[in-house]
Amino acid sequence: MLLITSSGNERLKAARRVRDGTDRTRLFIEGERLAREALEAGLTLEQAFFTEAFAVDHAELTRAAEKATAEQAKLSEATMRSLGDTQHPQGIVLVAQRPQREADHFWQSLPASALLLALDGVQDPGNVGTLIRAAEAAGASAVVLLPGCADAFSPKVLRGAMGSAFRLPLLSLASFDELMDRATAQSLLLTAAAAGGDSHRDFDWLPGQVLVLGNEGRGIPAEHLAHCQRRVSIPLQKPVESLNVASAGAVLLFEAAAQRQAAGQAVS
Amino acid sequence: MLLITSSGNERLKAARRVRDGTDRTRLFIEGERLAREALEAGLTLEQAFFTEAFAVDHAELTRAAEKATAEQAKLSEATMRSLGDTQHPQGIVLVAQRPQREADHFWQSLPASALLLALDGVQDPGNVGTLIRAAEAAGASAVVLLPGCADAFSPKVLRGAMGSAFRLPLLSLASFDELMDRATAQSLLLTAAAAGGDSHRDFDWLPGQVLVLGNEGRGIPAEHLAHCQRRVSIPLQKPVESLNVASAGAVLLFEAAAQRQAAGQAVS
Repeated sequence: MLLITSSGNERLKAARRVRDGTDRTRLFIEGERLAREALEAGLTLEQAFFTEAFAVDHAELTRAAEKATAEQAKLSEATMRSLGDTQHPQGIVLVAQRPQREADHFWQSLPASALLLALDGVQDPGNVGTLIRAAEAAGASAVVLLPGCADAFSPKVLRGAMGSAFRLPLLSLASFDELMDRATAQSLLLTAAAAGGDSHRDFDWLPGQVLVLGNEGRGIPAEHLAHCQRRVSIPLQKPVESLNVASAGAVLLFEAAAQRQAAGQAVS
Repeated sequence: MLLITSSGNERLKAARRVRDGTDRTRLFIEGERLAREALEAGLTLEQAFFTEAFAVDHAELTRAAEKATAEQAKLSEATMRSLGDTQHPQGIVLVAQRPQREADHFWQSLPASALLLALDGVQDPGNVGTLIRAAEAAGASAVVLLPGCADAFSPKVLRGAMGSAFRLPLLSLASFDELMDRATAQSLLLTAAAAGGDSHRDFDWLPGQVLVLGNEGRGIPAEHLAHCQRRVSIPLQKPVESLNVASAGAVLLFEAAAQRQAAGQAVS
């Protein structure tokens, strides 16, 4: 077992590049709960870093992490603080490969009634993480990330998503055009969450569709909105003009889930 | 018009105490949108600080703020940065009195069918703000803050609440016992959002009630849960165990709003 006491160690420098998003081929997984979820989700783990105190307090989890990773290192408390992304690191960090989805295969294997969530420029990592978690909880098939979104695999998104980012397919698309092409090919409707749409309660959530949510301040760009076949809104009491995007997404996703369940339709 | 160019100015020091929560008798309102909402909500404004550039770009709003405040000052850009709570201050800060609610009068004037939201130890200011906004948008009568919650009038909560914190009654209670007493006196049911409850879709949201949401990690304390007459849950697809508290609150509040609207019942 390697012991690292210098925060200038090359392995730590490499791990910090994952943490800070310079290395976007890997995942930086911090804390007991996320480490446990990563192990359960069967991610390909490359490295495990932990403190002595963590290994003592969580012997079983530490052993499982050791078994699942190619390389392990024990860090001093000070060195762990130099690696952690949170103010009070819990004493474990895993570095894993990002889950890869083969795009053609993913789209072609979707059921006709699939419900997908597409984020069009959702910038706040907390919102992206919370929405990924809500999407999995509501039975959506995947989350599609359009340009302008926070990196779906950044540490802050992973914390908000609480393991859902390890399990639910997350697809980054290069453009809204690509989403339109894929949706057309799979006969999925594009549903825009935007002001002036049909009430979410009267809306038909049963057809296969992609629910599109827009940026926190600006919403969905007009040129994208024009290409969505349907528009849905949540009726709000005046003078409130909008909900937080993660709140709105949760309300819409769980309305869809409830309607699909009532219709005896598999959710995803 | 006073011109302040020193960040050590006494008026700025006093305003920073409001910003940082040391002075909890006032509100620190930053940015164009919140300033506009504060003016529209008729808050008692004490001071207005703005930059020359802001006054030029938003002449009407600046004039309205000047008219509504007892004291105004123009700040240099650098001085505004020393006052702002955000990374890129928009150039306007208002200091206002916190809205005061007379508790007895508030509770006694509630309709029998009132829907209230109670936050029991919700710590994250972003979650508290988002929930206040969702509560107003769903037609709730008020938000009750139990011990352990983020300060409902901190700048970060105000940003998340987007003006709803200026309009919706926000009541801080000293204990859960006080909530129980008030709810009993007004014949309001206590509904706990907690695992193992009835599905939110089958739940009867029509009676007057207080929806209680718990802490982000720990939920509602067991000793409080024991005193809630009813328990409600959102069915989640496995293996997801919970939603973000603000997402869960939005789903429940809008389920209540939809049921009440379908029953022809005034929402609040």
